[in-house]
Amino acid sequence: MKIQKEVLIGVVCSAVMLTMGILIGHFGIKDDSSTPDWVRDVARDVDESLIEKFLSEVDNMQIQENLRVLTKVPHMATTAGDEETVQYMLKRWQDAETGLDQAWREEYLVYLSFPDPKNPNKVSVVSPSNAELYTAREKEKPYGPEQQDPEVVQPYAAYAPSGHPRGKLVYANQGKPSDYQLLNKTLDLRGTIAITRYGGAGRAAKAINAAPYGVIGVLVYTDPLDINDGLMSDDNETYPHSWYLPPSGVERGAFATNYGDMLTPYLAAKEETYRIPVKNITGIPPIPIQPIGFEDAYALICELGGAAAPDAWRGGFNCSYNFGGPGFRPTSTFNNSDVKLDIYNREEKRNSSNVMGIIRGSIEPDRYVIYGNHRDSWVHGAIDPSSGTSVMLEVTRVLGRMVKQGRWRPRRSIIFGSWGAEEFGLIGSAEYTEQYFTKLSERTVAYINVDIAVFANATLRASAIPSTQHVIFTAAKQVKAPGPDSISVYDNWIKFANRTNTDNEVIPRMGFLTGAGSDYAAFIHYLGITSMDIAYTYDRTKTNARIYPAYHTAYDTFDYCSKFIDPGFTSHQAVARTAGNVLIRLADSLVLPLNSSDYAESLESYLDKALELYQDQLTAKKISMEPLKRAVAKFRSAATDLEQLIRNSDLKNETPLKIRRINDQLMLLDRAFLDPLAFPDKHGFRHVIWASSGAGQPTFPGLADAFFTAMSSGLASDWEKVHYHLSVLSQAIEGAAHTLAEVI
Amino acid sequence: MKIQKEVLIGVVCSAVMLTMGILIGHFGIKDDSSTPDWVRDVARDVDESLIEKFLSEVDNMQIQENLRVLTKVPHMATTAGDEETVQYMLKRWQDAETGLDQAWREEYLVYLSFPDPKNPNKVSVVSPSNAELYTAREKEKPYGPEQQDPEVVQPYAAYAPSGHPRGKLVYANQGKPSDYQLLNKTLDLRGTIAITRYGGAGRAAKAINAAPYGVIGVLVYTDPLDINDGLMSDDNETYPHSWYLPPSGVERGAFATNYGDMLTPYLAAKEETYRIPVKNITGIPPIPIQPIGFEDAYALICELGGAAAPDAWRGGFNCSYNFGGPGFRPTSTFNNSDVKLDIYNREEKRNSSNVMGIIRGSIEPDRYVIYGNHRDSWVHGAIDPSSGTSVMLEVTRVLGRMVKQGRWRPRRSIIFGSWGAEEFGLIGSAEYTEQYFTKLSERTVAYINVDIAVFANATLRASAIPSTQHVIFTAAKQVKAPGPDSISVYDNWIKFANRTNTDNEVIPRMGFLTGAGSDYAAFIHYLGITSMDIAYTYDRTKTNARIYPAYHTAYDTFDYCSKFIDPGFTSHQAVARTAGNVLIRLADSLVLPLNSSDYAESLESYLDKALELYQDQLTAKKISMEPLKRAVAKFRSAATDLEQLIRNSDLKNETPLKIRRINDQLMLLDRAFLDPLAFPDKHGFRHVIWASSGAGQPTFPGLADAFFTAMSSGLASDWEKVHYHLSVLSQAIEGAAHTLAEVI
Repeated sequence: MKIQKEVLIGVVCSAVMLTMGILIGHFGIKDDSSTPDWVRDVARDVDESLIEKFLSEVDNMQIQENLRVLTKVPHMATTAGDEETVQYMLKRWQDAETGLDQAWREEYLVYLSFPDPKNPNKVSVVSPSNAELYTAREKEKPYGPEQQDPEVVQPYAAYAPSGHPRGKLVYANQGKPSDYQLLNKTLDLRGTIAITRYGGAGRAAKAINAAPYGVIGVLVYTDPLDINDGLMSDDNETYPHSWYLPPSGVERGAFATNYGDMLTPYLAAKEETYRIPVKNITGIPPIPIQPIGFEDAYALICELGGAAAPDAWRGGFNCSYNFGGPGFRPTSTFNNSDVKLDIYNREEKRNSSNVMGIIRGSIEPDRYVIYGNHRDSWVHGAIDPSSGTSVMLEVTRVLGRMVKQGRWRPRRSIIFGSWGAEEFGLIGSAEYTEQYFTKLSERTVAYINVDIAVFANATLRASAIPSTQHVIFTAAKQVKAPGPDSISVYDNWIKFANRTNTDNEVIPRMGFLTGAGSDYAAFIHYLGITSMDIAYTYDRTKTNARIYPAYHTAYDTFDYCSKFIDPGFTSHQAVARTAGNVLIRLADSLVLPLNSSDYAESLESYLDKALELYQDQLTAKKISMEPLKRAVAKFRSAATDLEQLIRNSDLKNETPLKIRRINDQLMLLDRAFLDPLAFPDKHGFRHVIWASSGAGQPTFPGLADAFFTAMSSGLASDWEKVHYHLSVLSQAIEGAAHTLAEVI
Repeated sequence: MKIQKEVLIGVVCSAVMLTMGILIGHFGIKDDSSTPDWVRDVARDVDESLIEKFLSEVDNMQIQENLRVLTKVPHMATTAGDEETVQYMLKRWQDAETGLDQAWREEYLVYLSFPDPKNPNKVSVVSPSNAELYTAREKEKPYGPEQQDPEVVQPYAAYAPSGHPRGKLVYANQGKPSDYQLLNKTLDLRGTIAITRYGGAGRAAKAINAAPYGVIGVLVYTDPLDINDGLMSDDNETYPHSWYLPPSGVERGAFATNYGDMLTPYLAAKEETYRIPVKNITGIPPIPIQPIGFEDAYALICELGGAAAPDAWRGGFNCSYNFGGPGFRPTSTFNNSDVKLDIYNREEKRNSSNVMGIIRGSIEPDRYVIYGNHRDSWVHGAIDPSSGTSVMLEVTRVLGRMVKQGRWRPRRSIIFGSWGAEEFGLIGSAEYTEQYFTKLSERTVAYINVDIAVFANATLRASAIPSTQHVIFTAAKQVKAPGPDSISVYDNWIKFANRTNTDNEVIPRMGFLTGAGSDYAAFIHYLGITSMDIAYTYDRTKTNARIYPAYHTAYDTFDYCSKFIDPGFTSHQAVARTAGNVLIRLADSLVLPLNSSDYAESLESYLDKALELYQDQLTAKKISMEPLKRAVAKFRSAATDLEQLIRNSDLKNETPLKIRRINDQLMLLDRAFLDPLAFPDKHGFRHVIWASSGAGQPTFPGLADAFFTAMSSGLASDWEKVHYHLSVLSQAIEGAAHTLAEVI
């Protein structure tokens, strides 16, 4: 059959045009209902190549330079040196090429305590005829220009009252309740001065515990056994020969039990805010107390008379640590003499600044990841806190540049905080959380604290809420450990601290955040925001030092840090990379990298311990632990379900509201554990799982404390309090399980 | 020029095929990257045609039938009658055609108080020789079969202690502190029995206020002036001839100051929950108290001796309301006689049930709109609470059917609650909020309470958080008012209660939720969930009754309701339509219909009042109100900004995360006003704007109370408390402003 030419032409043209039409129709016409750009944006997950870029850009020499600038002068809170660091932070965070979207300062009028430069505090030995037989050093011995800076504050106990107590000296070990109790068995402590060593009890507690026995003044020093692995001589053993504390070094500190501005509990300390009467302040020393160096402590303790103290009380001095007669031994040149304290501390309300900065989130700007550290130091504060600030500045430099160059904008907002007046009791961060309580509670995904970034250069250390374990591990696996070996921070960590988890894997051992040791306190304990504290730290096989020896002394300088703590700043770099990696993951991950099963594991371990320690006695008192058991089981099951849901969902292709829902469940998990009435006697502690506890047991803190009290007193009303707290605790854990459950 | 045939054919075919191709290409080929279905779903807004459908399906006769079933038998909390209503609610909510997605019961073991059926409470006049001269009625007079039901509980004061006080009678007006104070000026109240009338002070307060003066027992009755517009005769004036209270009618009630289960404050009352010792319960009568009818009160009061009480103390009796000698007048047959109370109330822990139901949300299942009412009554409880329950059941029938038929599923989840043991102190709802505190705080958009749906059939009444004003108005404009006129519920409302707003428009006047009058209390005051209470109510030009006269009596029956309160049930229907409309809008609107500017207006009006009332004295005390002024101004400005953002955004075409962000800001606004430490003496009140207040001023409640106390005592420490509360309040309002602000 012959095909007509016309038909052929028609068919060919038609075919061509149909094809063209289809192509035009499909690709050429922008549909009204075509997929909007945001559909792809909202599904964006963390970008691993960006993390690699971040890791490669974090520069140890930049950190070193940051530290050099930050430690030029002493920068105690609210001093001129502090203001210099404020200006420096603002300059860095407002830099056009490497700064943040915005940076600003926020001031609070806070209650601080200082020595009087015109009347320095004085500790002396005074003979019966009022002759001064011995006077303790006023300031630390200089080994370089830093100690000679006139802005070096005299060692003192912030918030210790002024006064001039004079009395016979006794040695009270660490100033724990049990220490004074033991002393009091053989000695009349009324009118005495007690000398104590750091450790074992909080700073303020050493004086608070003493006063009921009639002690009228307290000295505190750092024993070489506790800080220097016993070494004492500045001829060759201590700084500048090593990292060890010179004999005249003195640990300064806030002598305060509670955190935050003392005059404005739970209120941001603005100018017109109500302030409680000074006499109503609790948790500070009721009697004068003064810290001294071990050089002076040696001169006093080794002259003491009376019986020899127990072995456990002995430190590193080559003498017997006698209790005191009270007072010095008859053969001493100090025989019959008193110790006298002349304390001129003055409390003042001063303006303290936080410096804040933000990178605005692109997709979920109303979700915050907060990264912070304090800025104020006692003296030059190279390690505490400037190592952390140097790390933070390097993190913001790298991230800020990516933002300024248009290479990156995080999914969620990132807020950076450079807190003021931490050394006086975490004041800047506490006031910030009080002022922005609502917004922060509603929107904050997590808080990362890097205070002392490098205690020592052996291994990573993380104290954190268990749900963050996974993301910290992920980050640590991607960072090379400092040192010659090609090994990750994670693999290095596992060599120094490890445990076997419930899946029978050996993993690094993380610590908990049960105290108020740094600025994470208000975030986790008051706001219930999932928090972590990250640092590099010691090889414990090599030192028993309580903390790095120059802590809170005039020797904590750039020289000290760069020579003895982290030469080359590679440990700083490792911390910046690890913490920054965690930060990016928290800010960018589609699904928040928080793991509720790891939380369940911790609750189960607390429960096991509680059952082991308390169940028998509680059963005898007819108090059931079943509700607690059920609550923990519910939590575990809800955690398992939630993780299954995450695993089995194709979240990138589902409505972003589903991801937001899951993320809200994860974000709000720690909020669920808050009970503002759970710890009426503990300021700022509302998280029923991680509150501080005096009982020292690895279990639920309120239960442990209540049980301890009931066992001691035997009172029926105290057993009722145990039952009450069990109900509070069970309800909170159930509430957390509800948070993890999907709808009803 | 001649056009070739071949060309022509080619062009025509090509044109046709190109067009076809374009059509196929555009519409026929599903693109891999084509818009996912959820993009349209997440942008779905409230459907007005569905609301019209809902309004048309709400049936007054169904409501009438609901009420008939619910009021068949007395259903006091935890009785067999209560269990019948539990079963009925479950049956309705689990119905395959008109039920909810799920329905279940939740039990709490709660502390209740009942009279002893074997030893009825007794009030008598006893002569010096112990002759019983008069005995008050044990139960209300029957006018129909309902009052004869053996399950009608004897009138009593729940939580009043048992006891047998006997003493001379005095008349103490409303039992306010000032009433006893006045009486005490001329009389020795020790050992007396006080008779009081309802109103002016809380039920328990009448006894709590009396005890310090030595009063040993209290009677309380409803005066005809307060409830019956003065009418008293059951021959023709009172029920069953009218809605007025028969002479033997007695208002029962919980005599308790605090809400929620008394033994488990802030803890859900589960079996093993810690319970406080009974002796530690506060806020209940310390001495026996018993309610009686005005028939008996008349017989006692009109025989009293002593001076005539002030005019303001007089009620509707045609006698002089003397104070009492103490005791009866010499000319009375009761001369020298005592009044004796024999109270046999017993407290018991009993299981009380909430019935819960849910319609799962399609797009944001983790956002809840809660709608609730209590189920328990004192007797048959036709108005209180079954009018509300009948309305709720009609709302769930219509919505449930839409869901079961696949016609509708709300954007957000809707939870329905039928609360138990409300009459004993809002117990069911309070325990629910305690158990699910975390989840409800995190996820609840609003709570709608419809308890007594119809007090009377004149006009709508709404007491609510100001941000709900707009959605309530919108709903009320769409519902026809009952009655012959073609007028909306809104236009009818404006005739009965109106005000001029700041835009100079005349609008209906809404009330506030400052007390704990129904189950909204725990939601707004404890959880900070935006709440509202909706009902139909009186024409105040026609009656001065404190409340509908059969309230808490054996006359609150189906017969009473259908004859005198809402014949034809069209007011019930209007309430169901209005509340249901609000419910659908809260559940379905893309942007939550909550208006923060209306909240700002209320704060400004509170501020103006505070400045007017307190500024002079506070300035004299050097307490600045500037922080409060600044906070309110910040709130206003944040509210304006947020509304502008909503107005200027094309939200349907933006990422749903932006809408979610705005909705979270609106949802969490009331949460921002919570401070768990603001009112240490007020159980369950944490919302600093709407807490209860004794000062009776339309301003910030804590400030008003603190100011009142300081003015009365003049103590410096009380002025400090004023300053403290000002700081708490300013910080809370600023926190709320932060919640409305976008990112930082």
